[in-house]
Amino acid sequence: MPLSPEQLAAIDEQRAGSQPTRRAVAPALEEILYQPIELLDHGLIRVIDYMGDDNAVVQAARVSYGRGTKKVTEDQGLIHYLMRHRHSTPFEMCEIKFHVKMPIFVARQWIRHRTANVNEYSARYSILDREFYIPSPENLAAQSSVNRQGRGNVLEGAEAQRVLDLLKRDSTQVYDHYVEMLNENEAGEPADPSRPGLARELARMNLSLNFYTQWYWKIDLHNFMHFLSLRADPHAQYEIRVYADAMIDVLKRWVPLCYEAFVQHRLGAATLSKNALSVVKRRLAGENVTQESSGMGKREWLELQALLETK
Amino acid sequence: MPLSPEQLAAIDEQRAGSQPTRRAVAPALEEILYQPIELLDHGLIRVIDYMGDDNAVVQAARVSYGRGTKKVTEDQGLIHYLMRHRHSTPFEMCEIKFHVKMPIFVARQWIRHRTANVNEYSARYSILDREFYIPSPENLAAQSSVNRQGRGNVLEGAEAQRVLDLLKRDSTQVYDHYVEMLNENEAGEPADPSRPGLARELARMNLSLNFYTQWYWKIDLHNFMHFLSLRADPHAQYEIRVYADAMIDVLKRWVPLCYEAFVQHRLGAATLSKNALSVVKRRLAGENVTQESSGMGKREWLELQALLETK
Amino acid sequence: MPLSPEQLAAIDEQRAGSQPTRRAVAPALEEILYQPIELLDHGLIRVIDYMGDDNAVVQAARVSYGRGTKKVTEDQGLIHYLMRHRHSTPFEMCEIKFHVKMPIFVARQWIRHRTANVNEYSARYSILDREFYIPSPENLAAQSSVNRQGRGNVLEGAEAQRVLDLLKRDSTQVYDHYVEMLNENEAGEPADPSRPGLARELARMNLSLNFYTQWYWKIDLHNFMHFLSLRADPHAQYEIRVYADAMIDVLKRWVPLCYEAFVQHRLGAATLSKNALSVVKRRLAGENVTQESSGMGKREWLELQALLETK
Amino acid sequence: MPLSPEQLAAIDEQRAGSQPTRRAVAPALEEILYQPIELLDHGLIRVIDYMGDDNAVVQAARVSYGRGTKKVTEDQGLIHYLMRHRHSTPFEMCEIKFHVKMPIFVARQWIRHRTANVNEYSARYSILDREFYIPSPENLAAQSSVNRQGRGNVLEGAEAQRVLDLLKRDSTQVYDHYVEMLNENEAGEPADPSRPGLARELARMNLSLNFYTQWYWKIDLHNFMHFLSLRADPHAQYEIRVYADAMIDVLKRWVPLCYEAFVQHRLGAATLSKNALSVVKRRLAGENVTQESSGMGKREWLELQALLETK
Repeated sequence: MPLSPEQLAAIDEQRAGSQPTRRAVAPALEEILYQPIELLDHGLIRVIDYMGDDNAVVQAARVSYGRGTKKVTEDQGLIHYLMRHRHSTPFEMCEIKFHVKMPIFVARQWIRHRTANVNEYSARYSILDREFYIPSPENLAAQSSVNRQGRGNVLEGAEAQRVLDLLKRDSTQVYDHYVEMLNENEAGEPADPSRPGLARELARMNLSLNFYTQWYWKIDLHNFMHFLSLRADPHAQYEIRVYADAMIDVLKRWVPLCYEAFVQHRLGAATLSKNALSVVKRRLAGENVTQESSGMGKREWLELQALLETK
Repeated sequence: MPLSPEQLAAIDEQRAGSQPTRRAVAPALEEILYQPIELLDHGLIRVIDYMGDDNAVVQAARVSYGRGTKKVTEDQGLIHYLMRHRHSTPFEMCEIKFHVKMPIFVARQWIRHRTANVNEYSARYSILDREFYIPSPENLAAQSSVNRQGRGNVLEGAEAQRVLDLLKRDSTQVYDHYVEMLNENEAGEPADPSRPGLARELARMNLSLNFYTQWYWKIDLHNFMHFLSLRADPHAQYEIRVYADAMIDVLKRWVPLCYEAFVQHRLGAATLSKNALSVVKRRLAGENVTQESSGMGKREWLELQALLETK
Repeated sequence: MPLSPEQLAAIDEQRAGSQPTRRAVAPALEEILYQPIELLDHGLIRVIDYMGDDNAVVQAARVSYGRGTKKVTEDQGLIHYLMRHRHSTPFEMCEIKFHVKMPIFVARQWIRHRTANVNEYSARYSILDREFYIPSPENLAAQSSVNRQGRGNVLEGAEAQRVLDLLKRDSTQVYDHYVEMLNENEAGEPADPSRPGLARELARMNLSLNFYTQWYWKIDLHNFMHFLSLRADPHAQYEIRVYADAMIDVLKRWVPLCYEAFVQHRLGAATLSKNALSVVKRRLAGENVTQESSGMGKREWLELQALLETK
Repeated sequence: MPLSPEQLAAIDEQRAGSQPTRRAVAPALEEILYQPIELLDHGLIRVIDYMGDDNAVVQAARVSYGRGTKKVTEDQGLIHYLMRHRHSTPFEMCEIKFHVKMPIFVARQWIRHRTANVNEYSARYSILDREFYIPSPENLAAQSSVNRQGRGNVLEGAEAQRVLDLLKRDSTQVYDHYVEMLNENEAGEPADPSRPGLARELARMNLSLNFYTQWYWKIDLHNFMHFLSLRADPHAQYEIRVYADAMIDVLKRWVPLCYEAFVQHRLGAATLSKNALSVVKRRLAGENVTQESSGMGKREWLELQALLETK
């Protein structure tokens, strides 16, 4: 369980407060505000704040003095139109802020998305907790033999056990030594007064990439959906995908109309290259197209077949 | 008066609504939410939405589960520290959204600040109103004779009148012709059915740069303060400075502690170059430094004198 | 003809210089370096500088110590792979810089692309030339009656002449008055010494949006291709599309392999929504799908039909 | 020595090539192009490419057709003026690209600068080398007792030895286990064919933060100088500061006039808060100001004293 009683109390205190506002309010998101959604073995996301709702997208698109439209169906139509035609600026007019706790190797992928605001817990100033990620057995995948970046079958039996043992033992040991080098007690004083402690900014380098870090992360709706489309993708690493998947549920609570348009025009959509489009047209015209006559490479060809065959 | 009765009614309707929220609320900003603050002859700003308050900066800096601090004085101390040491990421954790109406030449300066979200009213799709900026007589400045980008004395009498006449007459005429070329009535149909209208995206090119445009503009607190420090500066053009000045009042309502730190460490602060710093030290040590012995150019030297002489 | 003899001489001087470099060189781009490519009636683009070539994309993708690959076909394969899978960071490793001269209303659309560096000629400091855009007769389009943002038929005869007369007359007049208000001769002194001139930063507001401005514009290859895909699109306004089209030729000279992948996976590609993809699959399976059974709105349905019917 | 004979040969091959270009060339930077500058125990930077020189800043500021100025002294004066008045856009018109190899904990600080392009070597696809950072004895600092983020005295004797032993032993062990879990030989096949290897994307999590990673990093001159001013600062962690210091030498070779202005107006400059400025004025006027009468907090007061006392 990732949260201490003090942390839970602080969350409850924030959730208990309620004040009137003239701003747009997203009721389904208010329900879960501040609440931890637990992920992996020690990770979490919490929605800390948000700005705007579905109608705010419409309002901005219209540069209007009031709501912008009268009916939900108008909002819906416009939102689909904007999403379909990649008019991204109205979606940038909503914003969401999360508290995220994740393994450092996940944070390193995450931070590549530059169009967001980040404030990370600093191991230069503070001491990290003894929390590290150990995959659950069903996620202990072998290297794929066909795809350099992919996962193959799940390790089993003694193999799995051996890997888990190595990960746990090394994580435990590097943390023990981290603490020993720091030589600090809870009050920030030397645990062993007879010797100095290593600077925190140096000691942290002994921790491994499965240790948990945390940050506040804020992003606008357009870039949030872009992040989700990349990180909820089957090609994304499992350990970041669980975060993206949980955030898609948040998206649905926050802006249900945008969520629906996102599923229609991003998550469930596909881009056909010039050659792929030509293959589709020729097949619709009754031609039997082969890879050779398609002008496509083998890998792209197989991906197209897979796309068109899926139910 | 820039607002129509319909627009005022739409604003009143939005102001009348109030819902409970668990989010941070800035009471003094809620007071003026959606309300137009009129600027220049037809311009305005309105706060449309915001995210976070002073404490949200602290919370993010601490990556905390709750408020982050217990006392306002702690918040204050930390905010000053962050501002002084240019730790900008916690300030990026708050966001504000405005509806702004301003002359196009002001919008062209404004848009150079790229770290913001903008959705502008489109003259490709819609027809602009007959609203153009005419400076008030006290702002009708002559070109400075000493500074290529500055203003000199105010024009007076016949000179002023001549300029005002030219501006008004040309603005009126280009709008008349804009309307004539469009040939559209209020329903979007040909005003004169015997002839076609020019495409809106073309007709707009006849309008001059003093016509008003409007947009929704959203920015995080850090970049907002950066914008204000540049545009509330005496070197900024008067017509954009009035917007920045009005926004500083908004800043004060929204995040009073950040405002105070902003005045202390940005607005009222000064950067001394290496040479300027050396001059100050030498003067403090009793030396009588001249421009020649300062290593500074004449203009920088005069600026330093002015800085140190101001009360 | 947009260039003065002095400007042409300055360009020739730069083109005449040649120095050895160890950097990647794109020979076909060197050929046209600094040369003006004339567009519209007074506009131009010139390539001022560039960084990298096709191989630099590969090198960055491989984080390699040398070229990264041995053969052009390997470069080609990797570039297509990266483009297809939207791995954008390697394309960000090349950069190009242009000098662009365009009407102000085009500049206003252009500047919305925020991921670029811009330095614009300032009418606060300097005086703009008497150069304004007048559409050629074949581009004098009527407002589309079916599409709020589109162009319809071309205006003809007296209608066209009337519009051209209005545009020319108003442009000439606002510039005459601009000069009169400035009251400056070429040396920057009062043309009429008996009266002061209006500040440049004010006088410019009398100019209309078809006046030409110019800037230096620098962008990385990834964002350049994104810009081109949006602005070379048939939905883009004609007056900016001519710039994008000319820049696509530059792209081809600079990075021929990236250009080819860009045409394949961006310019000639199409995105199918979830519903559209489902329609394609059902049609490939022999089903006769109608709009009603497609789940698509009428406009999206028509767009899909058009896409699939095009040769 | 961080480079293999193959890597050195690849670098020599690139350095040997030379082609004519019409672009701006920075001769002193060409001298060291592609060459590794070694840092820490296994780190390096190499300049891979650049765009522009001192004059390119001037050219962009003037939006000129040729060089922009005739004399170096004019370039110098304008560059100082632009730097002093924070006109940043002309500096954005130059660009530089590095290959950097650094410990992961340094990379994690580095990546916070979002206005840059990055392509990192991926441990999802590839296997990291057995290279980890061990501080040299003189950099093995104790935690500061006065400053939560600072370093105190250097550890000595048995204390130092103990820390070095722990770091080396743990790094060696986590890498051994990384290799064991991967179970791959150099050809990418199972080292032990009787068992599968763990997916690379998972195995990497066992490595600690002192392992070396590498990336291509590209940034414009304005943001490069901003990065340098933050990371060459005494408050920056030593391990990133050595990179910034080496890059300042690169800056000097590349754009000597900008370097000089950077030292004058950034590196050697200081910002005085409103209160600090007031203290300086009062002291210049002969007043004896104390902390109490300054309105400043103790820490800021001490910093001001330190600033004004430094020779």
